[in-house]
Amino acid sequence: MSFAKEPTAEEPLIVAGAGLAGSLMALYLARRGYFVDIYERRPDSRQAEFVGGRSINLALSTRGLNALDGVGLKDEILEKCIPMHGRLIHKPDGGTELQPYGKEGEFIYSVERRHLNEVLMNAADDHSHVNFHFEKKIINVALSDGTPVIENMKTGERSTTKTRYLFGADGAFSAIRGALQKTGRFNYAQEYLSHGYKELKIPGGENGEWLMEKNALHIWPCHDFMLIALPNLDGSFTLTLFLAYEGEHSFSKLRTPGAAIAFFETFFPDALKLMPDFEKDFFDNPTGDLVTIKCSPFHYNDQVLLLGDAAHAIVPFYGQGMNASFEDCFLIDQLLDSLAPDWGEVGRQFTKERIDDAHAIADLAIYNFLEMRSKVSNKNFLLKKKVDKRLNKWFPKSWMPLYSMVTFSNIPYAEARKRAARQDTLLKQMGWIVLAVLAILFFSMIAFGRTLVI
Amino acid sequence: MSFAKEPTAEEPLIVAGAGLAGSLMALYLARRGYFVDIYERRPDSRQAEFVGGRSINLALSTRGLNALDGVGLKDEILEKCIPMHGRLIHKPDGGTELQPYGKEGEFIYSVERRHLNEVLMNAADDHSHVNFHFEKKIINVALSDGTPVIENMKTGERSTTKTRYLFGADGAFSAIRGALQKTGRFNYAQEYLSHGYKELKIPGGENGEWLMEKNALHIWPCHDFMLIALPNLDGSFTLTLFLAYEGEHSFSKLRTPGAAIAFFETFFPDALKLMPDFEKDFFDNPTGDLVTIKCSPFHYNDQVLLLGDAAHAIVPFYGQGMNASFEDCFLIDQLLDSLAPDWGEVGRQFTKERIDDAHAIADLAIYNFLEMRSKVSNKNFLLKKKVDKRLNKWFPKSWMPLYSMVTFSNIPYAEARKRAARQDTLLKQMGWIVLAVLAILFFSMIAFGRTLVI
Repeated sequence: MSFAKEPTAEEPLIVAGAGLAGSLMALYLARRGYFVDIYERRPDSRQAEFVGGRSINLALSTRGLNALDGVGLKDEILEKCIPMHGRLIHKPDGGTELQPYGKEGEFIYSVERRHLNEVLMNAADDHSHVNFHFEKKIINVALSDGTPVIENMKTGERSTTKTRYLFGADGAFSAIRGALQKTGRFNYAQEYLSHGYKELKIPGGENGEWLMEKNALHIWPCHDFMLIALPNLDGSFTLTLFLAYEGEHSFSKLRTPGAAIAFFETFFPDALKLMPDFEKDFFDNPTGDLVTIKCSPFHYNDQVLLLGDAAHAIVPFYGQGMNASFEDCFLIDQLLDSLAPDWGEVGRQFTKERIDDAHAIADLAIYNFLEMRSKVSNKNFLLKKKVDKRLNKWFPKSWMPLYSMVTFSNIPYAEARKRAARQDTLLKQMGWIVLAVLAILFFSMIAFGRTLVI
Repeated sequence: MSFAKEPTAEEPLIVAGAGLAGSLMALYLARRGYFVDIYERRPDSRQAEFVGGRSINLALSTRGLNALDGVGLKDEILEKCIPMHGRLIHKPDGGTELQPYGKEGEFIYSVERRHLNEVLMNAADDHSHVNFHFEKKIINVALSDGTPVIENMKTGERSTTKTRYLFGADGAFSAIRGALQKTGRFNYAQEYLSHGYKELKIPGGENGEWLMEKNALHIWPCHDFMLIALPNLDGSFTLTLFLAYEGEHSFSKLRTPGAAIAFFETFFPDALKLMPDFEKDFFDNPTGDLVTIKCSPFHYNDQVLLLGDAAHAIVPFYGQGMNASFEDCFLIDQLLDSLAPDWGEVGRQFTKERIDDAHAIADLAIYNFLEMRSKVSNKNFLLKKKVDKRLNKWFPKSWMPLYSMVTFSNIPYAEARKRAARQDTLLKQMGWIVLAVLAILFFSMIAFGRTLVI
């Protein structure tokens, strides 16, 4: 059968994009002995000077670690990670409060994107059947026969090549997905938040020490907007301001150094003090958009499979973008265990198993923005979190807070969301039962009182 | 101010698309004395032989008639319309049941797309400042300065032209919207139903008479799928089968004449008897997709405005696609009353006022598929409809069924949806009150009985 052909040197597997998802996917495929060609529009980041534009550090958690473990890189990566034990909330009065992420020993890790990407590329490069093609972008796919069209980013020259199966890991604005979008009945949605983001920096101290708590993710929640900070290995922190484009508190109001400084003095005075280059960073760094991309299906015939941001770009508020992408690679590798070399079936199964999860984590990530910028300073919310954690302690297997299911387990995202909804319903019912018992007790007391009086 | 410049012969208004929305928009603009150029990728349909592919007849209702009235064409159009007083449900036992659409005198009209389009084009053509450019497609817009890029469909030659303001009425797969989609923070979603559709035909009788009830929209509801029929002036009916692509009852199962005929014999025997060319029609006519398209914003700077299907393509189950498009033209004309020649502000206001309505009717149209194919034969649903209508009779101003608000009023779609939700809540509460009163009566009777016994 034609769809069951193995890849060869002449007709290799191709991965579009040598970012985090593309590099890990290539590595998983290489470990199976496949011929793999990777096309990346940028120069080799291992040899290039630092290129900005994408976030500097990311939060790595269970799903990502699990996928790194699958290629034997977990320990090497963990060596250069900084554990963050919880959210460190900066309050308006200048005080702080640590809200642990999970149980004792459960935490997430701050990791540098560039380092992580380099480790993955090096590991893939170690396989003799893997070829990187830098500054070459797959700009289109002829879906009649799956032929990728490649543009040389230096010369503008276009060419085509042959492939057995194409993995589209070319990011949120994927050209491969663009080709699929022209096929019949392809569902697609891109939705922007009304907020944008801007990265800033708190440098390390004189001796490379951290000038705020190192082992936490810092949050300054201001209801409509927030500032967060993640620690880096060199003692610095990368800060991100999430703020609406328009409105009372918005980027549109911060167009002069005076206005920006006054805004930070009002809402983030402790952070501002630690940012000597604030003005320069604020006006030199671009303001980024926050987009959610959903699509369906993730595959096309026995030719193409989308993964990572190309399949499901999400907003960063659950710290799951990279983790979900890594989990894609892990799941595809599992499917190959039973289905290889039936590439068409791998694609179909991946779509079938993964679409609901991708949509669930996309929605949860949008919801979590509200939690981070506002709910973390709400007493009822914190009480509910406490009850949630207590129930988890009593019933560790049957009761798990949503955050823990998403961050510290491999429970499929959609299932995690469903379980959390069931738990919330139960919690409300329990609340009513407690109220009812109290009411019965109250009236019994009155009745008892009456009896006494009589 | 540059954005307040009036159009001129050198820099006219341009309308992309001479379909229903584009022709009516051009006519509204022409009546204001503007120079208008209309670009249409197809040949002039007034001179061409019949071109299939799009639905032959459509349901015209209050919003559409209102917009036609605004250009003085309502009566001319109504002359060639067939009133449909209600849904004529074809039951499995061969019987039929008429479910009226509204109150006495409220009905919708079956109208031929081609006739309607021709009347609109002729009326626009009567204005000396209007120029039609057929077989010329606007394939892109250079958004730096709003320059449209035009492709000659016969020669393939490309050129550019100048415009004061561009109206994108180029349909569900709008190239103008494609250009906007590449701008920052443009929200876009295309979602396909798992059902497709196929048009069929019941010809007229020997003397051009209708072989089924003429003044009704016929429905054969089968829960997961349905057949509908609309009357044409020549005595024929245009039928549309809505059926899933895959599954137990699906197009995938109807790949042979035998299978298709058996399917129709089982579910639509009365219709099949009236279709002498069934087999030919079924296998010659294409199977069409059903797509919902949402986007936001509808405008770009002071350069572009999207309207009609280009802004909001919806599924056909509420009969509102054309009506919503015509209402767009009416609303834009109203905005021009107060805002012309500030084109940028017209666009901004149109986006502001129309997005929620467009999204509401898109959702309602998807919901109505369920109503048409299944709920119309559900007793509880019919009872609720009766109560709804009775309340409307008692409180004609404050209580209106959703269908009536959408079809027989100009209440903005989003507001109609909100009002209907409030009415539904009220209805449920009334149900509980009735139950409570009955319960009190019941227990009072028992107590009364006891008193008697005592």
